Amino acid sequence: MPFILAAKHDDIQDSVIRVKTGQGELAIGEGSCTMIAGPCAVESREAYLEIALLLMETGVNLLRGGAFKPRTSPYSFSGLGLEGLKILAEAREITGLPVVTEVLDPRDLDNVACYSDLVQVGSRNMQNFTLLKEVGRCSRPVILKRGLASTIEEWLLAAEYILNAGNDQVILCERGIRTFEQMTRNTIDIGAVALIKELSHLPVLVDPSHATGRRSLVAPVARAAIAAGADGLMIEVHQRPDEALSDGAQSLTPQGFAVLARDIGRLACLSGKEFTAN
Amino acid sequence: MPFILAAKHDDIQDSVIRVKTGQGELAIGEGSCTMIAGPCAVESREAYLEIALLLMETGVNLLRGGAFKPRTSPYSFSGLGLEGLKILAEAREITGLPVVTEVLDPRDLDNVACYSDLVQVGSRNMQNFTLLKEVGRCSRPVILKRGLASTIEEWLLAAEYILNAGNDQVILCERGIRTFEQMTRNTIDIGAVALIKELSHLPVLVDPSHATGRRSLVAPVARAAIAAGADGLMIEVHQRPDEALSDGAQSLTPQGFAVLARDIGRLACLSGKEFTAN
Amino acid sequence: MPFILAAKHDDIQDSVIRVKTGQGELAIGEGSCTMIAGPCAVESREAYLEIALLLMETGVNLLRGGAFKPRTSPYSFSGLGLEGLKILAEAREITGLPVVTEVLDPRDLDNVACYSDLVQVGSRNMQNFTLLKEVGRCSRPVILKRGLASTIEEWLLAAEYILNAGNDQVILCERGIRTFEQMTRNTIDIGAVALIKELSHLPVLVDPSHATGRRSLVAPVARAAIAAGADGLMIEVHQRPDEALSDGAQSLTPQGFAVLARDIGRLACLSGKEFTAN
Amino acid sequence: MPFILAAKHDDIQDSVIRVKTGQGELAIGEGSCTMIAGPCAVESREAYLEIALLLMETGVNLLRGGAFKPRTSPYSFSGLGLEGLKILAEAREITGLPVVTEVLDPRDLDNVACYSDLVQVGSRNMQNFTLLKEVGRCSRPVILKRGLASTIEEWLLAAEYILNAGNDQVILCERGIRTFEQMTRNTIDIGAVALIKELSHLPVLVDPSHATGRRSLVAPVARAAIAAGADGLMIEVHQRPDEALSDGAQSLTPQGFAVLARDIGRLACLSGKEFTAN
Repeated sequence: MPFILAAKHDDIQDSVIRVKTGQGELAIGEGSCTMIAGPCAVESREAYLEIALLLMETGVNLLRGGAFKPRTSPYSFSGLGLEGLKILAEAREITGLPVVTEVLDPRDLDNVACYSDLVQVGSRNMQNFTLLKEVGRCSRPVILKRGLASTIEEWLLAAEYILNAGNDQVILCERGIRTFEQMTRNTIDIGAVALIKELSHLPVLVDPSHATGRRSLVAPVARAAIAAGADGLMIEVHQRPDEALSDGAQSLTPQGFAVLARDIGRLACLSGKEFTAN
Repeated sequence: MPFILAAKHDDIQDSVIRVKTGQGELAIGEGSCTMIAGPCAVESREAYLEIALLLMETGVNLLRGGAFKPRTSPYSFSGLGLEGLKILAEAREITGLPVVTEVLDPRDLDNVACYSDLVQVGSRNMQNFTLLKEVGRCSRPVILKRGLASTIEEWLLAAEYILNAGNDQVILCERGIRTFEQMTRNTIDIGAVALIKELSHLPVLVDPSHATGRRSLVAPVARAAIAAGADGLMIEVHQRPDEALSDGAQSLTPQGFAVLARDIGRLACLSGKEFTAN
Repeated sequence: MPFILAAKHDDIQDSVIRVKTGQGELAIGEGSCTMIAGPCAVESREAYLEIALLLMETGVNLLRGGAFKPRTSPYSFSGLGLEGLKILAEAREITGLPVVTEVLDPRDLDNVACYSDLVQVGSRNMQNFTLLKEVGRCSRPVILKRGLASTIEEWLLAAEYILNAGNDQVILCERGIRTFEQMTRNTIDIGAVALIKELSHLPVLVDPSHATGRRSLVAPVARAAIAAGADGLMIEVHQRPDEALSDGAQSLTPQGFAVLARDIGRLACLSGKEFTAN
Repeated sequence: MPFILAAKHDDIQDSVIRVKTGQGELAIGEGSCTMIAGPCAVESREAYLEIALLLMETGVNLLRGGAFKPRTSPYSFSGLGLEGLKILAEAREITGLPVVTEVLDPRDLDNVACYSDLVQVGSRNMQNFTLLKEVGRCSRPVILKRGLASTIEEWLLAAEYILNAGNDQVILCERGIRTFEQMTRNTIDIGAVALIKELSHLPVLVDPSHATGRRSLVAPVARAAIAAGADGLMIEVHQRPDEALSDGAQSLTPQGFAVLARDIGRLACLSGKEFTAN
C-alpha cells in the first residue's frame, strides 16, 4: 500500500485529535463520538448566532458553517467570506464551542486558521494538492472529506499529503460517493468507513446530510455510520430549512437534531463509544 | 411513482411474511430481525448438514445454501442442482429450520418450491421478467435481491412484477451495488434500505457478505444495516472458509457468526426490533 | 484471462457469421459493416411491414423488431409474442432480409429460432446463464448485448457460455453502460469496442440508440463506433417515432436512417470496412 | 439550463480560439481539427526539446507538457515547476509551435500565463472554483478538462465560471469518466462530445490517452472522437514510453503518433473538418 503515514501500524495508537473548547478539551477519536452540526452556510450574523445557541442546547460538540462555499454555478450564493469567518468566531465566543469551516483558496488559509478551530477541505478539493500541502503546513486540525468519485486509496493518499507536509491532525469524513442512483443525492459508502478503521489510524466521521440529500434519511444513515464504527457525525441543521440559501432539503431542524443526538448517544454507547454533550 | 402494489399507503400495514418452522412460525418484518445464514453453495451432504447443525446452535432463523449457482464463468462450480435441493430439505428436517435457495430457471421452480421454504431471485435475475412472473405464480415467499446496477425504482418495479402476478409474499434484499471502488466487492447502499422503508411496505434484508466481499467488513456492515432499519440479514457462513468452493473470502466461521448474532440482538433491541433465536 | 473460446489466438481467424438472405448471404465480421435497423417493438402487422419495406430501400442488411419485450414495469407494453414472431417472418418473406429478435424465456427459444434468423440476448439477460446455455444449443447465430453494468471480462465470459455449449456463432453488441451521467440514457463505451477487437475474435456491433437515448446523438455515436472498429450497427428506426409504443425518443425516421447509412458507408470505407447495401 | 454564457444560441456563432504561432495563427474550432501532443511531464530540457522537434515533424499543431503535475501520491514526481515552464518556452522558440501546460495553484498563474500560450485546468480541478475564477481573469485561452465524475452540466457550469469572469477563450476537453470498468483507465464518453456540440458554442477536444490508459486503444478512440465531431485531440507522446516518469503505458511513440495524425487527417476531412499540419 503506498500510503505510509496514514497507515495503521502495530506499534502506533489510533490518532486522537484534541481541540480546545470553552469548557476544556474535545477529543476526536479515542472512543468518543463527536457531533458536529450547523447550517450549510453562514447566511447572516443573526441567523448564525441563533442556530449556534439552539445547537449548544442540544449538546453538540462542534459548530460548522460555510463562509466560502464551493457552488456548481457561478450564479449561486457563495458565502460571506471574511465576514462569515468573523461571525463564526463570534459564535465560538458566545457558545464556547469550537468551529470548523471550509477553505477553498490557499490564500485564504491564514484567515480561516485564525478565525476557525478546525479547517475543512471539501470533496471537490480532495485532490487539490496545492491546498492539501498548504493545510499540511498549518497548525489547525483538518477535516478531509472524501472526493465524490475517489477511491479509498486515493483518499488516504490525499491524507498522506497533509501528514507528509507536517500536520498530523487529520480527520477523514465520508460524505457519499456518486453512483447511478438518483433518488438519493449520493450513495453513502458504509463499507469504506469500516475499511478505513482497519487500514488507518485516523479518525473517520460521516456526513449523512450530503450522503443522502434527504432530510428523512439523515437519521437512519447517521445511526448506520455509528454502528459501523464511525468516530462521529457532521450534520446540517437549519432553524428554517425551507428558507436555507443552500442544502435546505437535507437540513434537520434543531429539534430533529436533538432527537437524533439522543438516539446516537445510546447507540454509540452500545458500540463502545461515548457521546459526551458539550 | 409507477409502482402501486409495492408502494406504502396510509391504509395498509407493513407486510409480514410468515414461514412455518419446526418450532412454530417465523415472521419476517413486523419488528423482527431475521437472521439467515449458510454457505454460498451446498457443496456436499456431509458439509451442509454439519454447517446446518452448527448454525442451529447459534440461534439462526433460516438456512441458506445454493443448489443452482449463477457463475460468471462456465467453468466454475455451478451447484449440485436437484441433489442440492434434497440436501437442503434434509437439513430442514433435522434442524427444524426453514431453508431458502435461489432459482435460476423457470423450469426448476416446481422443484425449488417443493424442497425449499422460500425462493430467492438473485441479483443477476432481478430483471429476468420471465422468472419474476413465474415466482409470482408460486405459493412460496420470494426474496428478491437488488440488481447490482439497479435503481431503487427498478427494484420496486421488479417486486411489482411478482406482486402483480399474485404472490404478495415478497422480501427485498440489498446486497451492494457496483461502483468504481475496488477495495470492496460492491458498495452497500444503506440509504436505499432507509428509503425503501419509506416508500414500500415490503420487508428489506441486507446481505453484508456480497456487499463487501471481505470477512472483516461483514460485522460492521451488518450492524449498520440493522441500525438503518433493515428487517434482517443474510450472511454467508462456512465451517472452513478457506476451502469453500465459492465466496470463501467473505464467509464468516460459525463462531464468527455466533458473535455477530449476539451483537445484532442487542442492536436490534435498541432499534425497536427483536432478534428471537430459533 | 479466464475466457478461452472467446479469446483471440494467433492461429485462428476472426469469426465471420454467415446468414442466408433472399439475395444470397450476409457475412457479419470479415471487413463488412453490417447495418441492422427496425423499430424497438413489432407493434402491428401493418406497421411492421411498412417500416420493413421503407428500410429495405435504404439498403439495410438485417431487420430488427421485438416480439418479447423486457419492460421495467409490468404495466408497460411487452410485445405481441408469437404473433410478433410471425409478422417478422412475413417481413422476411416480403423483403428477403433476415430478421433478428430477442428471446427472454428459454421456453420460447424454439419458436424464436424457428421464425427468426438470428437470436438476440438482451442486456438484462447477459448473465441469465440458463438462457445463455440454451441459445448455446441452438443453431441460430446469437447477438449478445453487453449488460448495462457488466465488465468487458464478464461479457466475454457470457459469450464463453454460449460458445462452450456448442454454438460458435456469437456476435457481441455494445449498447452503453450505466453511469452517473443523466443527460444521456447510457454511456457508450467506445474503448470497449476497440479492446474487444484486441481480445477476441468475435464480431462486435454497436447500438447507438440505447447507448444515447437521444435521436440527435445516434448519428455521431454511430460514426464513432465505426471509426473505432465496430463491425456494424444496430439502430432503432420508426416511421412515426412520436407514436412509438417504446423508445420513440431515440428512434430515427427511415429518412434519417438513410442519411446515416450513406454517411456510414463512406466512413466504413475509410476504416477498411465495407457496407454493402442489401 | 442554468448555463448562459456557455450555451449555444441562434444568434451567436460557434467560438473559435485563435493562438499565435511561429508560422502565423492557429484556429481552434471553426472546422479545424487541432492536434496537440507531447509527454505527460516535462522531464528534462534535453528530453523535451528532443520530443518537441520530433513532434514538429509530424505536423502537430500545439505542444503539451506538464510542469506542475497533480499526482495521487505525495511521493510521485510532481514536475519541474518554473524550470519546466522555461523549457516549454524554449521549445516554443525553437519549433514555432504554441505550448499548453497545466496550472494547479492560482499563485502560479502569472508564471504559467507568461511562459505558455494556453493554460490547462485539469480534471481534478474542474470544480476548483478559485482557480476557475483566476484563469477567467487571465488573457490566455483555457483548456478545461472534464472532471472524472462530473456531469456534462457541471462541466459547462465550470466553463461558465471562466466565461463569467471575463475570459471568453474556453476550450473543453473530454478525457474519460470513472466507471466500474477496470480494463481501461477511464471510460471515454463519446456521447458527451456530441451533446456538447449541441448544447454549447465552445470547441471540444478529446484526450484518448487518459481516457483509455492503454497505448493500443489511443488510435481507435482518437478516430471515434473525430468521427463524433470533436474539434481536436490531445495525445500523450514520449520518445521512450517505457522510461516515462508518468503515464508511459498510455503514451504513443512519435512514430505511432505520425501514423495516427495521417489517419486523423483523412477522417477529419470526411467529417467536414480539416487538419492542417503546422
